[in-house]
Amino acid sequence: MTPSYIVIIGCGRLGGLLANQLSSAGHSVVVVDHRETAFGKLTAEFSGFRIHADASEMATLRAAKVEQADCVLATTNKDNINLMVAQIARTTFAVPTVIARIYDPNYEELYRTLGIEIISPTQLSAEAFMRAVANLRERPV
Amino acid sequence: MTPSYIVIIGCGRLGGLLANQLSSAGHSVVVVDHRETAFGKLTAEFSGFRIHADASEMATLRAAKVEQADCVLATTNKDNINLMVAQIARTTFAVPTVIARIYDPNYEELYRTLGIEIISPTQLSAEAFMRAVANLRERPV
Repeated sequence: MTPSYIVIIGCGRLGGLLANQLSSAGHSVVVVDHRETAFGKLTAEFSGFRIHADASEMATLRAAKVEQADCVLATTNKDNINLMVAQIARTTFAVPTVIARIYDPNYEELYRTLGIEIISPTQLSAEAFMRAVANLRERPV
Repeated sequence: MTPSYIVIIGCGRLGGLLANQLSSAGHSVVVVDHRETAFGKLTAEFSGFRIHADASEMATLRAAKVEQADCVLATTNKDNINLMVAQIARTTFAVPTVIARIYDPNYEELYRTLGIEIISPTQLSAEAFMRAVANLRERPV
């Protein structure tokens, strides 16, 4: 693995988990959140930087050096923030890999055409449910 | 596939998607939601029953004939509702397969020991992000 420079937007359950894992895997990680308490999810595995600021402001993205990032992961629980940051990362800062968590599947195709990879928890959950149901036990008569 | 009797709690994005797919696959499906508008997510694929009531009340679970269900899927966006319904389905009504969507991973192991299968959107999303990052492109120098 080549170590990469990865900016993670949002340090919630998902962002925190990814920050710990990716930092522990040797990547340079910067994690951005506007809630100071969110950084409590970072463990001893995390050796990166934390930026306590609003990711929807350009100054924050510049402070996170998004223009140098190999990868931006947008993981807040707000679709509109994730999509906005992802678009700016991709089009203004030409970040090669941009991945966003999106709950609402409606705009998925649109964003894929912009080169933004979309991860849909609802779709992933539906697939997991369908796999589980495929193996279901019948009620004994 | 043997047709099963499946009760789905919650007709949000996830529950609605599952209701349509499972009904279309030939299962007998009942979907429960306390918001009348939620049933708008059901398409022509859906030939099951809808129950407009609060799933946290025993009367609702009896109306949905949970005691005859082969499978209960708890898909609301409230972990505590999903866990409560799942527990009642499993312990009071002896439903053989009970699966719940749970955002908070803390109680996962506890519920697994009760025979409730847990689907964690956060964990599934984290795995999808990690797979995507494993293949990431480097920024051209």
